[in-house]
Amino acid sequence: MAAKPGIPKGTRDFSPVEMAKRNYIFNTIRDVYHLYGFQQIETPAMEMLSTLMGKYGEEGDKLLFKIQNSGDYFSGLTDEELLSRNAAKLASKFCEKGLRYDLTVPFARYVVMHRDEITFPFKRYQIQPVWRADRPQKGRYREFYQCDADVVGSDSLLNEVELMQIVDTVFTRFGIRVCIKINNRKILTGIAEIIGEADKIVDITVAIDKLDKIGLDNVNAELKEKGISDEAIAKLQPIILLNGTNEEKLATLKEVLAGSEIGQKGVEESEFILKTLSVFGLKNELELDLTLARGLNYYTGAIFEVKALDVQIGSITGGGRYDNLTGVFGMAGVSGVGISFGADRIFDVLNQLDLYPKEAVNSTQLLFINFGEKEAAYSLNILAKVRAEGIRAEIFPDSSKMKKQMGYANAKNIPFVALVGENEMNEDKVTLKNMETGEQSLVSAEELIQTLKK
Amino acid sequence: MAAKPGIPKGTRDFSPVEMAKRNYIFNTIRDVYHLYGFQQIETPAMEMLSTLMGKYGEEGDKLLFKIQNSGDYFSGLTDEELLSRNAAKLASKFCEKGLRYDLTVPFARYVVMHRDEITFPFKRYQIQPVWRADRPQKGRYREFYQCDADVVGSDSLLNEVELMQIVDTVFTRFGIRVCIKINNRKILTGIAEIIGEADKIVDITVAIDKLDKIGLDNVNAELKEKGISDEAIAKLQPIILLNGTNEEKLATLKEVLAGSEIGQKGVEESEFILKTLSVFGLKNELELDLTLARGLNYYTGAIFEVKALDVQIGSITGGGRYDNLTGVFGMAGVSGVGISFGADRIFDVLNQLDLYPKEAVNSTQLLFINFGEKEAAYSLNILAKVRAEGIRAEIFPDSSKMKKQMGYANAKNIPFVALVGENEMNEDKVTLKNMETGEQSLVSAEELIQTLKK
Repeated sequence: MAAKPGIPKGTRDFSPVEMAKRNYIFNTIRDVYHLYGFQQIETPAMEMLSTLMGKYGEEGDKLLFKIQNSGDYFSGLTDEELLSRNAAKLASKFCEKGLRYDLTVPFARYVVMHRDEITFPFKRYQIQPVWRADRPQKGRYREFYQCDADVVGSDSLLNEVELMQIVDTVFTRFGIRVCIKINNRKILTGIAEIIGEADKIVDITVAIDKLDKIGLDNVNAELKEKGISDEAIAKLQPIILLNGTNEEKLATLKEVLAGSEIGQKGVEESEFILKTLSVFGLKNELELDLTLARGLNYYTGAIFEVKALDVQIGSITGGGRYDNLTGVFGMAGVSGVGISFGADRIFDVLNQLDLYPKEAVNSTQLLFINFGEKEAAYSLNILAKVRAEGIRAEIFPDSSKMKKQMGYANAKNIPFVALVGENEMNEDKVTLKNMETGEQSLVSAEELIQTLKK
Repeated sequence: MAAKPGIPKGTRDFSPVEMAKRNYIFNTIRDVYHLYGFQQIETPAMEMLSTLMGKYGEEGDKLLFKIQNSGDYFSGLTDEELLSRNAAKLASKFCEKGLRYDLTVPFARYVVMHRDEITFPFKRYQIQPVWRADRPQKGRYREFYQCDADVVGSDSLLNEVELMQIVDTVFTRFGIRVCIKINNRKILTGIAEIIGEADKIVDITVAIDKLDKIGLDNVNAELKEKGISDEAIAKLQPIILLNGTNEEKLATLKEVLAGSEIGQKGVEESEFILKTLSVFGLKNELELDLTLARGLNYYTGAIFEVKALDVQIGSITGGGRYDNLTGVFGMAGVSGVGISFGADRIFDVLNQLDLYPKEAVNSTQLLFINFGEKEAAYSLNILAKVRAEGIRAEIFPDSSKMKKQMGYANAKNIPFVALVGENEMNEDKVTLKNMETGEQSLVSAEELIQTLKK
């Protein structure tokens, strides 16, 4: 007997119900991207390792899934090299391709390769799986989808404004209450400048973030422990204690950062984004949060992150402005700003809050019970009319026992069942059963269509 | 300077226009699948090699993309094994995962693994890429999408009937005129039985297929050359000369195959399918074609193939009935029937016949020209209203030169442009330019929305 089959650890099958939910998520995000003029691209699952290596740090290189070369991948290898058993070094001889690790590097590669066809600013979105040989754990998979949108080739802050509107619209459509947090790398750089501790900015944001939990004295103690001078800690006090409205925060920052050109620039940018958005009155809260320090090596301007208010879970969307997307591929001066929705976490949040709209998850609307060949032939005719009206309908293919057929309708959550026997055929009608209420009625094909179209 | 980036041979990037066209294809197929009660699943890109190996023949095993194990993949290998440089053998030590080669084997694996959750008959569809280390050539890629639908767990011929309706509906929606060819493995087996040449059935269908081109004498000569006896060739004559309507063909076959039980069964099955479908009057031609011999090792009943009538290209869709999908994974008795649309070829056919609907390919409907900060702020307000109506719209993010902004509208094929300057702001209006006709008019936000919603 054959072995019981399995799938690679950290990967998943998606069942019809899961797929319907995932499609609801992707389609909602996609629709909003379209509304803002973003266009989809797709890139191959495999990229050259020369494109991927060195882009995600040393740790990232190790997490790439590498694809063995076809044919004789040993050619050109000496016995010595082989017997060295140097897995990392030999992998680069055995493999020249790898699975994409994120959508950003393939996008940068795409922009460079297709620069002559692209009209800038280029507003692209991409919804595709990525692969990481990470240790699998709860909520972390080796294959997962990313849903990225980026605008490249424009420095305008209107792009930041629109991305925040997109975030607000998407979560409003989902019915998930969120807080959108924004920060700016330039403000953080300004703070570091002012206190003269440029390399401590992450330690500082981590410590500040604990204010509510551990209090000011402990925050200051932690800063001291991290090697920050008393003088710098003194200068940091207004920033640690920063609170109030976004306007109040900006006013304080303007004072504190008066001596830093780049800090001032960060405050101005944040002010423009917040002010422009306040005109529209976003549905969700927008908060300037200095403790937000994601992707500091990468982002150069605005930084965003989205937190769900009603579920305990990490950030469900994030992004920011970067200055040099394509430099590593020899194309300088391409600035961009982007966001990435965390589909897997959004999936969990929607599940926990039970927010999936019924019509997104239901599939077939009507099942014809199959009582035999003659009845089936009669049903097929009505079925054709029903489908011509865009109603999703099926007939049970076999004339199995009633219990089995009704069980199928229940398992698939089909809301209506049509019964066609001798009587119905004689009267040119159908008995329509509402599976929720149990109600039955004898109707014509046209009445059936009217009922289902409601 | 960085090296010019490339992508692995046989793979492709898809640009926004190509994606729009591909999405049109996938969405059309998906919509029709839904109409018939099929539900989507997805499986991981990577499968265990133990799942994939041995399922596609020796040649297929070679064409699998194998993924190098993470970590120290040399452990447990002797020096001797290493120095043997046996690429194929060592690949199985270095790799335990591979990229899926088709959607059928992963589906079979899915059915076996999830048998307890599945309600049969299981009508699933799957639209995902597959990977094959084939030599790339025109129209053959190393990464391409398959769009499969299968019904498993039902022997009913109604499934075959519905799949033909699906094919007919999909190509009618595309506007591609096709001939749907059907055959039945049992008829071919019956023919082989009658003439006593069971192993020659492929040679026979290949020869018969040449009748129109080379004439009866040459067909008979070819059959003789292939080692078929004169007696068998004599018995084959009515089959070689088979023509007329499907009904006429069936009548002849009934006579010829009178002595073969399995042959009779094949004729009956074909008769049921053709008769049931003739009641609906498919939009496209449906032809019983005995020369159709695809996947003979695999299919056990009906076989289908679709040919485009107006473009010279191979089969653009195919499928059939199989009896033992999951046996190889230890689950016997699962019969199924399926079809697979060839998305890449359909893409080519739609391109050649220029059949893409305009609205499927166009993205943004309206672009606001950006004349500066004040004008942009005013435009953003109208933009919000326009988008709230579901109209895809954008504003050029930078106040660049007019020429650049209009060039952007042209490159993206945006049909309407909104111009907002001092005058428009004073009058609380917008100048709307129709990019096709060049016509301009001063309109309110509401009038603008009305125009674009048409």
